[in-house]
Amino acid sequence: MDWTEKLGGLCYGGDYNPEQWPETVWEEDVALMRRAGVTLVSLGVFSWSRLEPAEGVHDFGWLDRVMDLLHSGGVKVNLATPTASPPPWFSLAHPDALTVTADGARLTHGSRDTYCVAAPAYRAASVRIARALAERYAGHPALAMWHVHNEYGTWCHCDHVAAAFRAWLRERYGTLEALNDAWTGAFWSQLYSAWEQVMPPRATQYLPNPSQTLDFRRFLSDEMLAHFREQKAVLRELTPDVPVTTNFVFGDWVPVNQWDWAKEVDLVAIDHYPSQNPPEETALAADLARGWAGGRPWLLMEQAVVTYTGPRMAAKRPGEITRLSLSHIARGSHGAMFFQWRASRGGAELWHGGMVPHAGPDSRIFQEIRDLGALLPALAEACREPVEATAAIVFDPESGWALGSPGLPSTEVPYLEAVRQAHRVLYRHGVTADFVHPTADLSAYDLVIVPSLYLTSDEAAANLRGHAERGGRLVVSFLSGIADEHARVRTGGYPGALRDLLGVRVEEFLPIGEPVTLDTGDRATLWTEHVHLAGAEALARYPDGTPAVTRRGTAVYVSTRLPDDAYARLLGLGPETPVESVRRGEWVFAINHGSLEQEIPGNLLLPPGGYAVARVPR
Amino acid sequence: MDWTEKLGGLCYGGDYNPEQWPETVWEEDVALMRRAGVTLVSLGVFSWSRLEPAEGVHDFGWLDRVMDLLHSGGVKVNLATPTASPPPWFSLAHPDALTVTADGARLTHGSRDTYCVAAPAYRAASVRIARALAERYAGHPALAMWHVHNEYGTWCHCDHVAAAFRAWLRERYGTLEALNDAWTGAFWSQLYSAWEQVMPPRATQYLPNPSQTLDFRRFLSDEMLAHFREQKAVLRELTPDVPVTTNFVFGDWVPVNQWDWAKEVDLVAIDHYPSQNPPEETALAADLARGWAGGRPWLLMEQAVVTYTGPRMAAKRPGEITRLSLSHIARGSHGAMFFQWRASRGGAELWHGGMVPHAGPDSRIFQEIRDLGALLPALAEACREPVEATAAIVFDPESGWALGSPGLPSTEVPYLEAVRQAHRVLYRHGVTADFVHPTADLSAYDLVIVPSLYLTSDEAAANLRGHAERGGRLVVSFLSGIADEHARVRTGGYPGALRDLLGVRVEEFLPIGEPVTLDTGDRATLWTEHVHLAGAEALARYPDGTPAVTRRGTAVYVSTRLPDDAYARLLGLGPETPVESVRRGEWVFAINHGSLEQEIPGNLLLPPGGYAVARVPR
Amino acid sequence: MDWTEKLGGLCYGGDYNPEQWPETVWEEDVALMRRAGVTLVSLGVFSWSRLEPAEGVHDFGWLDRVMDLLHSGGVKVNLATPTASPPPWFSLAHPDALTVTADGARLTHGSRDTYCVAAPAYRAASVRIARALAERYAGHPALAMWHVHNEYGTWCHCDHVAAAFRAWLRERYGTLEALNDAWTGAFWSQLYSAWEQVMPPRATQYLPNPSQTLDFRRFLSDEMLAHFREQKAVLRELTPDVPVTTNFVFGDWVPVNQWDWAKEVDLVAIDHYPSQNPPEETALAADLARGWAGGRPWLLMEQAVVTYTGPRMAAKRPGEITRLSLSHIARGSHGAMFFQWRASRGGAELWHGGMVPHAGPDSRIFQEIRDLGALLPALAEACREPVEATAAIVFDPESGWALGSPGLPSTEVPYLEAVRQAHRVLYRHGVTADFVHPTADLSAYDLVIVPSLYLTSDEAAANLRGHAERGGRLVVSFLSGIADEHARVRTGGYPGALRDLLGVRVEEFLPIGEPVTLDTGDRATLWTEHVHLAGAEALARYPDGTPAVTRRGTAVYVSTRLPDDAYARLLGLGPETPVESVRRGEWVFAINHGSLEQEIPGNLLLPPGGYAVARVPR
Repeated sequence: MDWTEKLGGLCYGGDYNPEQWPETVWEEDVALMRRAGVTLVSLGVFSWSRLEPAEGVHDFGWLDRVMDLLHSGGVKVNLATPTASPPPWFSLAHPDALTVTADGARLTHGSRDTYCVAAPAYRAASVRIARALAERYAGHPALAMWHVHNEYGTWCHCDHVAAAFRAWLRERYGTLEALNDAWTGAFWSQLYSAWEQVMPPRATQYLPNPSQTLDFRRFLSDEMLAHFREQKAVLRELTPDVPVTTNFVFGDWVPVNQWDWAKEVDLVAIDHYPSQNPPEETALAADLARGWAGGRPWLLMEQAVVTYTGPRMAAKRPGEITRLSLSHIARGSHGAMFFQWRASRGGAELWHGGMVPHAGPDSRIFQEIRDLGALLPALAEACREPVEATAAIVFDPESGWALGSPGLPSTEVPYLEAVRQAHRVLYRHGVTADFVHPTADLSAYDLVIVPSLYLTSDEAAANLRGHAERGGRLVVSFLSGIADEHARVRTGGYPGALRDLLGVRVEEFLPIGEPVTLDTGDRATLWTEHVHLAGAEALARYPDGTPAVTRRGTAVYVSTRLPDDAYARLLGLGPETPVESVRRGEWVFAINHGSLEQEIPGNLLLPPGGYAVARVPR
Repeated sequence: MDWTEKLGGLCYGGDYNPEQWPETVWEEDVALMRRAGVTLVSLGVFSWSRLEPAEGVHDFGWLDRVMDLLHSGGVKVNLATPTASPPPWFSLAHPDALTVTADGARLTHGSRDTYCVAAPAYRAASVRIARALAERYAGHPALAMWHVHNEYGTWCHCDHVAAAFRAWLRERYGTLEALNDAWTGAFWSQLYSAWEQVMPPRATQYLPNPSQTLDFRRFLSDEMLAHFREQKAVLRELTPDVPVTTNFVFGDWVPVNQWDWAKEVDLVAIDHYPSQNPPEETALAADLARGWAGGRPWLLMEQAVVTYTGPRMAAKRPGEITRLSLSHIARGSHGAMFFQWRASRGGAELWHGGMVPHAGPDSRIFQEIRDLGALLPALAEACREPVEATAAIVFDPESGWALGSPGLPSTEVPYLEAVRQAHRVLYRHGVTADFVHPTADLSAYDLVIVPSLYLTSDEAAANLRGHAERGGRLVVSFLSGIADEHARVRTGGYPGALRDLLGVRVEEFLPIGEPVTLDTGDRATLWTEHVHLAGAEALARYPDGTPAVTRRGTAVYVSTRLPDDAYARLLGLGPETPVESVRRGEWVFAINHGSLEQEIPGNLLLPPGGYAVARVPR
Repeated sequence: MDWTEKLGGLCYGGDYNPEQWPETVWEEDVALMRRAGVTLVSLGVFSWSRLEPAEGVHDFGWLDRVMDLLHSGGVKVNLATPTASPPPWFSLAHPDALTVTADGARLTHGSRDTYCVAAPAYRAASVRIARALAERYAGHPALAMWHVHNEYGTWCHCDHVAAAFRAWLRERYGTLEALNDAWTGAFWSQLYSAWEQVMPPRATQYLPNPSQTLDFRRFLSDEMLAHFREQKAVLRELTPDVPVTTNFVFGDWVPVNQWDWAKEVDLVAIDHYPSQNPPEETALAADLARGWAGGRPWLLMEQAVVTYTGPRMAAKRPGEITRLSLSHIARGSHGAMFFQWRASRGGAELWHGGMVPHAGPDSRIFQEIRDLGALLPALAEACREPVEATAAIVFDPESGWALGSPGLPSTEVPYLEAVRQAHRVLYRHGVTADFVHPTADLSAYDLVIVPSLYLTSDEAAANLRGHAERGGRLVVSFLSGIADEHARVRTGGYPGALRDLLGVRVEEFLPIGEPVTLDTGDRATLWTEHVHLAGAEALARYPDGTPAVTRRGTAVYVSTRLPDDAYARLLGLGPETPVESVRRGEWVFAINHGSLEQEIPGNLLLPPGGYAVARVPR
């Protein structure tokens, strides 16, 4: 389904929650949307308790009026199924459908996402409200897209989950023998003799089983995906031409494998809230989204006018909203959407900001929103070209989950940090990278980086080997190749599945607290290894003379954490630049994130904070 | 009820727990009390399990003997109702009356305060034991005061609480529509369609509703107050001439609005355990107590002979007990009481210290207790005069509660810190301040400081405006005026309700991690804003030239956290002084907390650690 | 029972978990064991779910084959009862036998040790599986020892525990009156009027009762010991000649009083996993084990080839395995055992390492294991002599438990740190120390150190007094002598039971945050006191001139925490040395932990990291 065609030009707008405001505000909203150039709003994301105030009692009148009003204002609607927050009456009627924590506490409504995705009552109610919405608004001229649920990512450990987990495991393993083997059940006497003995990883006395924990995250991803697919089926049945999506969130805690989900959505959409270094985090998120979308356009569904930085939430600085939105678009987003249109007066996220801030339209924020809205139509032509990248970074959420298990040799080596470093180094040196699945076709890339691919299937190992054998450059970092798909160590020497390819054999892991200085003068941190050469040559050595970085043919192995500059040198990158630059055919998107004027291709000069989208033939 | 008249001179003594000791010790206790000048003891605060060893079985004999013994020794009794710790048999008989945490765990007896204040069985048992005590001791010559309960401040989330919370909300809001509106229930689909859907803020999936959280603290305050009033009614009925009080504690976690409670007690009494900076904390607590008491005398019901400083509990240094007691008395306390008379041998607080320490009466501590007891009678005359203050600080616990919600723009801006800074700056520069409610009569004050009055009702805003319009100086700091009584943001620009009065319009909040330097050279921390002048002039500016501190007429707005010295300069204060000085009519109380000799009014010289109470006509 | 004779020479081997591997690996295992000189393996520690896959269904065939295979390879078996981890079917059949946390959460299987040691079903199942094993393998030629359970140390707060705790208390106290008195139940109204009111220390509102908490740890120790004794009785009945043991773990959290347990095991065995300073921690653990064993040989049952240092798990450095193993043996261990033989591929501890690491036998680790195995037989002769020590350190786990209570005057004065300092100072200055119970015969020692013996019984006080009166040197540090066996303070001045012996009277505790400098120039930390001399003289004074360190005859009192060098000076120790040296008769064990060559007795030169076991006549 070519959803970009249906939606026309780049999407611009945000979550619209008119139910929080009196109707008198709605007319002003639509007028302001027109001023701002808004083309699309996500409507009704959290409106279930308004749409269905009691079981089976629907109140669509207000939504009819909003839909009509938006249509009359030329604004299209990305209509949500509101299943991310069931109404209070639902929780009361179905206490078994409330979330249970790992230590057995049953949560209460009062926030969002307080449901068990495996609870039959919740599943049924979700499909019912989705059907009711689709029946009501099928054919409505404003309806342009379906926004199923919101930010899938909840955990539950209740008995419904236990039953569903067992069914998922039976499907995956067939027999208890296979499960016991995959999970190494013999360790600590955890062999199962009947399926009902299998549990979600609930609170237990000491360390949990890492294979069980990994499979539980896989199960949660699949179970939530089943919930999505049930709604999608209803929506497709009743509105076959309307694209269906949901908005992905990203982070260690999210039990969602976006590679799998990307196959089920009509378009990949993401929410993105950068914190410490917004430009770098934006490029990372956008490149991931493009990877999940297989290089096709995707959509930035949510961003904010404020930045959360740990303990603080501050308004974005002048120009920042524009620059970050452009970065997303340059990297493949078919527009720029926000949470939310109008900042809430109350509720849990009243300080989250909005395109219309608390201060109202007479504000710098809204002025910048208007300017950005006016700019977007001019970008449509450039956006028709594909984003170009010659480097790829292998991304595998399951490796991240497995590396997050208790009991690993170091608690200080998070997966996403390894991925971020690879991306950051390329980004700062002006190289655009794609993210790819470990088994993806790599033939288009000169350089493939493999950060800490802890779980490496035989298929992935063969894929990487093929790349190197074709002469492609491969840079593999420590904690790759270690385990099979069940998180069982591949014995005989690390890095297991990649040992032959890399020409090394690692005897021991030696994570460190204090840095060590390599013979190259670089200070390595966090992790070292006892590496033997077995076909490779040493590019850098530890103080004791053993190899730290090695090369066999075009395949490089990095057994420690290098500082960014050494990493860049290893990759043979050019100088750092504060200009983010993305090429799409003859078009170049350039954004100057620095504090000095910069020259960019085409002999253009970009002032600090400036940007350009220019046709620069190669 | 003029309780000071009933009690005579300044009260001196402490909690007396004879039930922890064999009767042979009691005689020695009373003899030592006479040596120490003790006039009043708080008796029976935790004696329920001794008084009523099984349901309905009373054992008053021991208490009769203690009462008689004290009376014979000339010591008056502040007799407690022991409801702060029900006996173990009660918990066993009424498991539904045990506390339930937010995540559903039911607590067990074994400590104190393990009850649900809304549980019917607990409420009934409380009134029964209060009645039994009043019936027994009405007319006893030692009975001088009633000490209901102890340090009200517990939380519970059980079903009794849920029912009581709903009743309280029905009373407050009338209809579900009004509640849904006040709480912005439309956010995250939390609109209620029946009262039974309304819950205490139990553990939920993600951020709670800040309006619900705020109302729950208000409810807890009122529910505990109802428990107090039920006991008070019984005591008043049976002993109409005996004053009734309870001892307030103070802190972020305490869900008690002291302004409301002060109206219900015959006298305001506080417990005070300073930690980091005892003199400053003492002045703060004492000024708060005087504020709650409306300027009338109040009573320091508990202090300790040790100081808790985070991880440590250390004996107070020589002279410190005296100086801090004098500070309380100077600021309006009608005496100085301690927890406790004799340090316990066992139990949870065996290291809390006592007027008679573990080492016994042959000790520096007891000597200082005797000296202080000998000193107090001489202060009675000075204490008849009212404490004089020309500055006031607006204090609103509800604003503190609202600012403690998750989801605020910064987690680093606690309310009490803002209040403490205002008080500390005045204190260190020798200015005595009153604390006042936002709607209090302000006409007596030259200067009114308003620290972070996040919730500002229309009435409070009008009151502050009136003060400025009368020419009074007003200093308002950031995060004031922001929200209405339901914690809903006042839109159109911050600081909302105070925008016109202050002549500024703030577009955006910009909390910061690193300090910034203002054009005055002052380093501002924690918080900045994007301020527009709208009638005001700038007194200080941020590095980007926008206003940081403004003035319109006599009203000053401070949009950032100033360092103490800049704050003092802004207030036009004199030099810092280590001498705490409080004037009461012609009397001056002066305490030298410094390490050098100091001259005070009346040409007196105070040695380091010295003090004076002197008649110094103006 | 002379177990060393039954086992022959020094034991060498580790936990062997063949059930984690296919049978094809077993033959290789035994062949590798022969190469490594393995003499003993601990078998079946976590094999319950394999041995009894369903209730009452046993599968011993695989274990028969393993036993026979080991026997044929000349390896003896330390056969485990697998009760440290019941099978999943057990948990499902007996949910009441699952652990309950203090706040009432019931744990789920999935790890190890998820049972309630007081649950009747668990107790019965434990005895049944122990009996089945003993019946099966009584008389098997490989069976050399019984390894009951594993690392006893779990907590539970369920109703079974409550009932057992009450029974234990009735046995200890006889009457409720005695219990109320011992626990100071009058504090906070916790007097019991019926036994069923007595509870384990479950989650309560505020501070728990320290006497209750202490008794609960004592109860847990005794309850687990009862579980051990039940199994031991069965094993003894069926295999009267086979020694029975269990492996002790050590740490603040472990509710086990090793002095009591040592009387019940045929041999003391410990597990030891050092972290920050492996040589010092090894010496400490080994000396404790020898103390518990009453000077007789004991056994290091588990150590690892990796070191856990907080967040990291790193392979031990070359030579480290050997040096630490030798240190254990020098100090009395009858061998060196590991967890585990072959590093696991999966399960919770897959990164814990093994004698055969993931890299396989072609590895530095396995080479060192072989070298160590080859070395051990030569040590047997030296090991027949007793370890010699002239200093003793009093160790009392109950004092540690009591000092770990909430509500103590400082949270920064952990008991084990005080014990460690005493041992460390002796160790670094080349002095071997024994650990002794407070009531042990002290006549063999010149010097007895008493670190923070918070609980001091009258008997212990008399014992220490006797030592001093006989002219023995006694060094007592602060927080000794304070409380009776019920953790009730001994009043009249600290250090209570030791006041007369030490000739001091302490009025007040003054724990500190910043160090203070004594008149000796030493910087004292953590703790100070207000000390009066009452027969003693001052050896060092605080800045205010009051005594800090005192001496009366041969008894020294240290009222603060001295730095190590001052402590050593006070003890009159010689210079520091990096050489660990232990004398056993004419034999000297010497290990050079330093980075320079060192000369040792016998004019031997030890290179860095070198060691010697030499006959050096006195």
